[in-house]
Amino acid sequence: MDKIYEALEKVRKQSPLIHHITNWVTISDCADIVKVFGGSPVMAHAKEEAADMASISDAVVINIGTLNTFTVDAMKLAITAANKKGIPVILDAVGVGSTKFRNEAVKELLKFKIDVIKGNASEIAATAGINVTTKGVDSGNVSGNMVEIAEHFADERECVVVVTGKEDICTNGAITHIIKNGTPMMSKIVGTGCMAGSVIAAFCAVEKDYLFASAAALVCFGIAAENADKTSEGPGTFKNKLFDKISTLSDISINKMKRVEDVKQCRK
Amino acid sequence: MDKIYEALEKVRKQSPLIHHITNWVTISDCADIVKVFGGSPVMAHAKEEAADMASISDAVVINIGTLNTFTVDAMKLAITAANKKGIPVILDAVGVGSTKFRNEAVKELLKFKIDVIKGNASEIAATAGINVTTKGVDSGNVSGNMVEIAEHFADERECVVVVTGKEDICTNGAITHIIKNGTPMMSKIVGTGCMAGSVIAAFCAVEKDYLFASAAALVCFGIAAENADKTSEGPGTFKNKLFDKISTLSDISINKMKRVEDVKQCRK
Amino acid sequence: MDKIYEALEKVRKQSPLIHHITNWVTISDCADIVKVFGGSPVMAHAKEEAADMASISDAVVINIGTLNTFTVDAMKLAITAANKKGIPVILDAVGVGSTKFRNEAVKELLKFKIDVIKGNASEIAATAGINVTTKGVDSGNVSGNMVEIAEHFADERECVVVVTGKEDICTNGAITHIIKNGTPMMSKIVGTGCMAGSVIAAFCAVEKDYLFASAAALVCFGIAAENADKTSEGPGTFKNKLFDKISTLSDISINKMKRVEDVKQCRK
Repeated sequence: MDKIYEALEKVRKQSPLIHHITNWVTISDCADIVKVFGGSPVMAHAKEEAADMASISDAVVINIGTLNTFTVDAMKLAITAANKKGIPVILDAVGVGSTKFRNEAVKELLKFKIDVIKGNASEIAATAGINVTTKGVDSGNVSGNMVEIAEHFADERECVVVVTGKEDICTNGAITHIIKNGTPMMSKIVGTGCMAGSVIAAFCAVEKDYLFASAAALVCFGIAAENADKTSEGPGTFKNKLFDKISTLSDISINKMKRVEDVKQCRK
Repeated sequence: MDKIYEALEKVRKQSPLIHHITNWVTISDCADIVKVFGGSPVMAHAKEEAADMASISDAVVINIGTLNTFTVDAMKLAITAANKKGIPVILDAVGVGSTKFRNEAVKELLKFKIDVIKGNASEIAATAGINVTTKGVDSGNVSGNMVEIAEHFADERECVVVVTGKEDICTNGAITHIIKNGTPMMSKIVGTGCMAGSVIAAFCAVEKDYLFASAAALVCFGIAAENADKTSEGPGTFKNKLFDKISTLSDISINKMKRVEDVKQCRK
Repeated sequence: MDKIYEALEKVRKQSPLIHHITNWVTISDCADIVKVFGGSPVMAHAKEEAADMASISDAVVINIGTLNTFTVDAMKLAITAANKKGIPVILDAVGVGSTKFRNEAVKELLKFKIDVIKGNASEIAATAGINVTTKGVDSGNVSGNMVEIAEHFADERECVVVVTGKEDICTNGAITHIIKNGTPMMSKIVGTGCMAGSVIAAFCAVEKDYLFASAAALVCFGIAAENADKTSEGPGTFKNKLFDKISTLSDISINKMKRVEDVKQCRK
């Protein structure tokens, strides 16, 4: 996990276009975070333009937080267009495990090539086909080793799987990074999970190694959160300072503050 | 109106799941406010999952701020599911009195059991069937005694009616509390009305006495706003500090600052 | 460009109702900015009420940032209703030039009377029928003199054309103002473009000279941004302070800080 700052610099210099078909709750947060990282966010959910917008973008975020049948149709068109041009697709499996509709929708989306699948513990477990319950969009309990579940799922899908939580898991099935950056305040506000997906997309847009890109994105996001936490008075000011601290992320702070652990493969 | 802090503590400890079918303007504010109060917000408007999500939730918020025919259908399914399980339903009658479509939609929704009906003066008057005009989503003038209108409507519907304004009215038709907490700054930003609905839902999720729950919610929200106002430099910083000050609400500040007046029933 | 403060005072005193059919990314920002300027924002996209809400409003904002076929239908109904009553219509041509769907949609909307057409350079060029590419919702390169393109388009359409950018262009084809207020930070956050459209609408609601109204709106918005920039620590705090600084705009600061240049007509 060297060259994290170099990846960040690529985002800042190339300003990749990140197309989102996302939810209505954090749509503004996701646009904001891409922008402060230096990228160019766009959101377009009409099925008439989803493919065209995906085709000119550098990465596509599919976030099912407030899915409906119209947006799921648009998501399929956007993914198909992205797949055709080798543009990375990030799926944020928001709320999978909470309703049958989400479970079925994610199954439909998994028929396509997805490069990074992201969610909290119960979302990823449910997406991987394990019978767990997600509490709305907050993680439910998962019995079993989450690293093992993620590795198995990544291996099966030949993709990167990211499990966000107190510590984040990034794995391609063979290599697994545990990201220890971040702060408990991140779980006390709405939007950090969705924003993480958008940041991962921005890094995947400039780095072909999506495992490294995902981990680098979460390290940067987590360090900015740690810096924001130090001077904020609560969840409201924290969220604003998070945006401030992203724009000042430096080579020195990243190298000094990054906390990444590589784990031995759990999967037999 | 004792034990307000105890109610707040229940929200913080039980972290109730608050399902929203709400508007696109303040959807993020509503999620944020539930989260900082300690609850778990979820928003899901697809008719395919509205009932399922309502069924696993602890309270349901129906906010018609940016309604359309699809979301109204989903609202009916969510309310039906909530009614079946005795889960409290809070209706925020945003903009009723401004267009025929809203007036008709709210009539449709009132065919179901609603536990708390909330709105500003002209929204509540229009929802109660009085011929008044709402200026978009801001209150128009209502001739007549608002306490009396609210009490009559609550009695007729056998529910709690909440009228927000400079002072808030909470009534079940027999007992009426006037909440005097809050600050003029609340009416200078967008979202405080909708957020109030979500906070009421979070308290109704943990307190079976919905009149007390609604009043307690507004007291807590108003005190946090007063605390935020003291250190903010304008509407922008106020909104952020509002979130900060909710997370630091204490037993002492609530008991010292609460301003609730019980009024004699106006209704003959 | 005298009497800018007087126009602002009219917005504050009359509190015009500004109806929006707008995008889901910045819908909250647009409502916030209208509110802090003293107006009353409303957002209603259902085709069943779009005309009714437009009819009772003082200005209508049509922003195609996240358009779909349903909202485009509602936009046509809202514009028709506004046109019938002489209510000003502001079109924010977000993302025109990026997909065929947006290009076609804007053509449909231009069949109606639009009073102010607003966009960044490539959006306005594409809307005017020039073959350029918009990068999602960020401006692409336009060859040719933007002032000339804007003047020609305004003249052809008999409307006001506003091109936002480092310097903003406001023209009715005969008279052209260049607004030099603002700060580079405005382009580093999401929402300033859309908010500018809403502010223009608020000023057009109280000033029949839409060229003056548009320019006055951008001067006020830009000065507030300059004031916010002075005390903010990054893009997050900047956005909040922007709202703060709008509410404190005074006669003195506007007259001292306004930077408007009138240019000779480029168009032959």
